Amino acid sequence: MIIDKYNKRAKKINSLLCVGLDPDFEKLPERFKALPHPQFEFNKYIIEETHEYAVAYKPNMGSYEVRGKDGWEDLQMTMDYLYKNYPDIFTICDAKRGDIGYTSELYAKAILDNLGFDAITLHPYLGEDAIQPFLGRKDKVSIILCRTSNPGSGELQDLESNGKKIWQIVAEKVSKDWNKNNNCMLVVGATYPEELGEVRNIVGDLTILVPGVGTQGGSVEEVMKVGLNSEGLGLIISSSKAIIFSENPKEEARKLCEEISKYK
Amino acid sequence: MIIDKYNKRAKKINSLLCVGLDPDFEKLPERFKALPHPQFEFNKYIIEETHEYAVAYKPNMGSYEVRGKDGWEDLQMTMDYLYKNYPDIFTICDAKRGDIGYTSELYAKAILDNLGFDAITLHPYLGEDAIQPFLGRKDKVSIILCRTSNPGSGELQDLESNGKKIWQIVAEKVSKDWNKNNNCMLVVGATYPEELGEVRNIVGDLTILVPGVGTQGGSVEEVMKVGLNSEGLGLIISSSKAIIFSENPKEEARKLCEEISKYK
Repeated sequence: MIIDKYNKRAKKINSLLCVGLDPDFEKLPERFKALPHPQFEFNKYIIEETHEYAVAYKPNMGSYEVRGKDGWEDLQMTMDYLYKNYPDIFTICDAKRGDIGYTSELYAKAILDNLGFDAITLHPYLGEDAIQPFLGRKDKVSIILCRTSNPGSGELQDLESNGKKIWQIVAEKVSKDWNKNNNCMLVVGATYPEELGEVRNIVGDLTILVPGVGTQGGSVEEVMKVGLNSEGLGLIISSSKAIIFSENPKEEARKLCEEISKYK
Repeated sequence: MIIDKYNKRAKKINSLLCVGLDPDFEKLPERFKALPHPQFEFNKYIIEETHEYAVAYKPNMGSYEVRGKDGWEDLQMTMDYLYKNYPDIFTICDAKRGDIGYTSELYAKAILDNLGFDAITLHPYLGEDAIQPFLGRKDKVSIILCRTSNPGSGELQDLESNGKKIWQIVAEKVSKDWNKNNNCMLVVGATYPEELGEVRNIVGDLTILVPGVGTQGGSVEEVMKVGLNSEGLGLIISSSKAIIFSENPKEEARKLCEEISKYK
């Protein structure tokens, strides 16, 4: 199973840390900005600094698309570099795609095959049939948005239907119906620890990607308390800017990894 | 108002037709495949054939991303070509994006500024705050997914909350709350004419993008009967493969345009 790739690495380095590779050009240190492939060179630096603590890397597509074809090229070079040097690190494309089936096939090819990601984040709004080209890939992971980390995420996600909130229904659907190939995960923001605990109760041992620690304010302690599964795994705790734009990315990654270990 | 750009063109050429520029490389006629910019050259051909009937063009991002940086470049060239030669034709990026606010800013810059689109399609799942970087752009249109054209779109969209379906709630929210800058539209599939009629009742004169005529099987007659607004406008009827991959794109566009006129 593809999820074993994540679990094996998590056990090997005793970590649940995912480093977000969101190298917004404007925020890059000056020494990278003038290079021919600034985002790739910056990512390479971050990867070298943080890989011993990283179970996964998660580039957000927006950071690259804003540079057009140059950004796309830097992302491809980053993925080639990871695959060549750290093939056991799990890779997530934070693309938040969601289109009808035919277009989903194109996105699956673009992101899972051509760029070579192990996993992609997806919107649930169109339903199972629309994202079947992702769900049907036993060799790849579909990570479905459930309860997102933004302040207004409850506007639609907290609506109740038959006594259940939409995010609860999504958690049920994904874990019970959409996960036929044992290749689904969910996204629940660290900023909603109570909901995270409830999602854990709904989904059994399913793995949950948890963004929102760091600059968004989520607490590692709270996430760990309610989010771990029965194997002491089942979480991908993601931090981006707080690590990659710090003075010392290695030290920030080490500290976050240590904090995660403390609550294990 | 940016919506005037669409309405002005619609009145000028007496059409509501949007041509989907989804030039999947595998399906291109052989004469284009060997060119240095096959998707751009094909789009140029389609634009020249269809522009007199087209109120809008709508590239779907998936068709380009599958070719990586080359696809991105061909899309940029297509947009530059449209802007230079047909600046009064409305342009929609069918990207179906939806991320937290910070990343939405990057996508807005990538798609509305750098590529230069007038409009972008967006997921509603994260709520208003997440897509504020799009909604806040008075010079650009946010087109929110409401009832999508795929067969399983009801799986989440038909869930009922307080007696209303999710797509009805989205239609209400967008037309009443999210549309502060008069720059919102909705997506409702031509494959659901009944729901389209209900959305029209909810949203007043708001413009609705209607994909799904042509290969997906939606009927122009049904769409026109229930979808027009009080000004005889308010619809963007989109067809892609049935036009662009036909033997005679000009004739197909003309016929669809004529059919639209018939029911006006």
